[in-house]
This record gives sequence, C-alpha cells and structure tokens, in this order.
Amino acid sequence: MKEIISLKNDLIKEAVKLHQKKYRENFILLEGNKALEGAVSNNLKIKYIFSADKKLLEEYKNYETYFVTDEIMKKISTTESPSNIISVAQKPKYSIDDFYKFKKITLLDNIKDAGNLGTIIRASAAFNYEGIILYNDTVDEFSPKVIRSAAGNIFKIPVIKISKGELLKFKKTHKFVATVVNSDKTPKDIKIDSNTIVMFGSEADGLCEELLNLSDEKITIKMANDVESLNLALCAGIILYLL
Amino acid sequence: MKEIISLKNDLIKEAVKLHQKKYRENFILLEGNKALEGAVSNNLKIKYIFSADKKLLEEYKNYETYFVTDEIMKKISTTESPSNIISVAQKPKYSIDDFYKFKKITLLDNIKDAGNLGTIIRASAAFNYEGIILYNDTVDEFSPKVIRSAAGNIFKIPVIKISKGELLKFKKTHKFVATVVNSDKTPKDIKIDSNTIVMFGSEADGLCEELLNLSDEKITIKMANDVESLNLALCAGIILYLL
Repeated sequence: MKEIISLKNDLIKEAVKLHQKKYRENFILLEGNKALEGAVSNNLKIKYIFSADKKLLEEYKNYETYFVTDEIMKKISTTESPSNIISVAQKPKYSIDDFYKFKKITLLDNIKDAGNLGTIIRASAAFNYEGIILYNDTVDEFSPKVIRSAAGNIFKIPVIKISKGELLKFKKTHKFVATVVNSDKTPKDIKIDSNTIVMFGSEADGLCEELLNLSDEKITIKMANDVESLNLALCAGIILYLL
Repeated sequence: MKEIISLKNDLIKEAVKLHQKKYRENFILLEGNKALEGAVSNNLKIKYIFSADKKLLEEYKNYETYFVTDEIMKKISTTESPSNIISVAQKPKYSIDDFYKFKKITLLDNIKDAGNLGTIIRASAAFNYEGIILYNDTVDEFSPKVIRSAAGNIFKIPVIKISKGELLKFKKTHKFVATVVNSDKTPKDIKIDSNTIVMFGSEADGLCEELLNLSDEKITIKMANDVESLNLALCAGIILYLL
C-alpha cells in the first residue's frame, strides 16, 4: 500500500481524466465495491485502487493500492458523496463475432440518458439477454453514471457499438423486433422462435427510420389514453421480461 | 402580469419554502409546463405563476402571473437548469372512502427514492391503476423530484398516506398481493378475480413483516442467478403491467 497526499499527483490526474469519455480508450473508472468486484471476477486488469480507508485497502493487498485523503477521494469521484473505494480498471473489449451467435440481444438507438442505459443493462442481464448493441449516438456505456445505474452488472453482459454494415449482417441470423408507440401488437402477440434483437429508441424520438424499416415485428406497451409516455427503462424492462 | 425583481420578495420566499415538505401542507411547487397543465385540468387552484419569459406568461393571463428575473427562477427552482415556468398550486386532497371502491391499487412501503416513486406513479396511471397508497415512511409524493419523475402524471391518480387501521379495512374488499424476492409464483401464476392491492417494499429491505403477513399471494420476478436485484421501479412496472 502506497500513500498519496497531493491532489496534483499524476495518478490522481489520470483517474480524474477518466471522467471524460475521450480518455476512456483503454481504462475506466469504477466507483464503489460492486463495480470493482465485477471487474475482478471478469479477470479485468485492475490498474490502481484508491481509498481513504486503510482496512478496506488491505482486502485488496495483491493489487496496486493507494491510501489517499478524503479530499482526493472527493476529487476523483463523480458523485457528491464519494464511494469508499475507487479503482481504475482495464476496459473490456468484446467481439462482434460472438454476438452473431447470441439468442437474445438488446439494441439501443440514440439513448442519451445514462441512468436509463444503466438500468437497461441491469435488466438485460437479469432476463438472460446475452448482449447489448449501442447504435447511433448512444451515451457511453462506461460513463460513471451508467456504471452506477447498472449496480454491479456492467461486466455481466457484453456491450458493443456497431456500424450499419455490421448490423445488416444480423438479418441472416436474427429476427428484429422494434418497440414503437402505435402498433396493434403487444409483447404477448408475437412469437419468438429464432434468435432475436429487441430494439428501443430514445424517449424523445423513438427508433430511427432505418431501424423501423429493418424490423420484422413492431410491438407496443398499451397505456391509458391520457398518459403521455412511460419511462424508457421501464418500458424496456417489461418487454425484455416478456420476450 | 406583475413584476418581481428582488430575491427577497415575500412571494419568492414563499415559493422557496415549498422545497421543504413541512411547508407543503396546503400548497405545492410545480416546475415546468406539464405539471402546471396537469393542475389546471384537475381544477386545482393556481396561486401564482412565475416566469422570466413574458410571452409564456401571456398564455396564462387569467391567473396571477409574475414576470421575474433569471436569478429568481434559479432561486425558486430545485434543479440546476430551471424550468421556464414555475407555479404554486393548491395541494390536492383525496378521500380514502373512494379507495375502498377501486379495482386496482398500488401500495408502496417505505420507499425512499423520489425518482422511483415518480416513475411508479407514472406507470400506475399508465396501466389503469386507480390509486396509490403510501405506507410507513415513504418519500413525500409532492416533493419536486417526484413531480418531475412522474412527468405530468402526478394529478392523474390519487395518492394517499394511510394508517394500519385504515389498511386493515381493505381486507374485506381487496386481495393483497406482495412482491417478494423468493416466491415460486410469478405474476402469470396468480389469478386476479377481485379488487386488488399490489404491494412493493423498499429496494434495501423489501416489504415489512406486517404487510407480508397481510398478503394473500406472494409473487417474484425471476432473474438470472448472478444478478443481484432489479431497479425497484422497473420491477414494479413489470408487475403492474401484468396484473
């Protein structure tokens, strides 16, 4: 266990940089114990572990641990009350080739809300989906808020970003189900008899035209007439549970 | 339309007080257009309307409107980027007598997260539940964050807090369904053939012993083994949709 007392230490600066997506090419910031445990059990390399609690660091004595001040914890944290342990871990890299074999995949198009993405990652893992595809300009899956909302499940399901060309190849192996607001079909009305990609668009705009055109089925969660819309993550949760 | 330029104006102080539950006995703070429209269409008295946008206030010229500075909007807002219209409205009061006649009721026990409560209010309204009961120490339904998460649906469904004695009376008219983590029954396995109260406990502790003892049925949303738990609002959404 080493000690850092200066806010200007290079390792601290490196950790703070990971708040921004552009610096998360190879490493990511994990706040709290659940995310760290998840990284450890997925054999991801743990680069550094920071804490202001010596006892806690002793549990990780095989790693490169740093005992730091409360002020430093506050600086490297992205929340107002910092977690008691914050680490820097290798970013997992997943292969699209595996995805072509997956039975059930969640696709998210242009989702901007990190809390929603984290909650959908958690629900996809819970309901035995095997992978998540991010399409168009969706929020980064390793943003600290996504990791927080996924509540320790961020490493339990592979997440990839793919191009249009790569997506089109799935048409040979997968049925495409689109979630829309105006279909007559509900999740109970469709039959899932092959590999499937279930697609969700943003709260504001829904799925893009291109994905709607690719879809083999369109489904809707019916609601009372005067209610405007459901929370996206909640709508996704219902559909992922039922399909 | 009147004008206020001082942060120390009494009406501004009155609005700011509504950030705190203890001052929300008779009036509540509504941030944004959706909540205000909801209050108007439910015939709630609108006491004041504040905005830094004169054009917007002209749409409400039959009400007591106040043109204020951006600084004042920031002060009466509970968010970092204030809504463009903020109003003070009469707090709705609902009667428990109506609840005894409702077919489907959501009960929330000891829920602390305002975002979850708002999302569950929105889902209950969407899936034709007629009322929501808050039990034990649940977050205030008129906290600004709840109103925000309910996305304009806060006045579409009555919400009440009740005592144990009042709850027991529902045993004559309603079936009690408890959501738990370890039942063999899923939502599909139970039959809803009478008026029903569907009960959800807090993310941390689940339902209290007393409510578990009152339940006629216990149901669980099955998940992959290694996933710890679902987001509460998402779990509630699935069950409210299916029952």
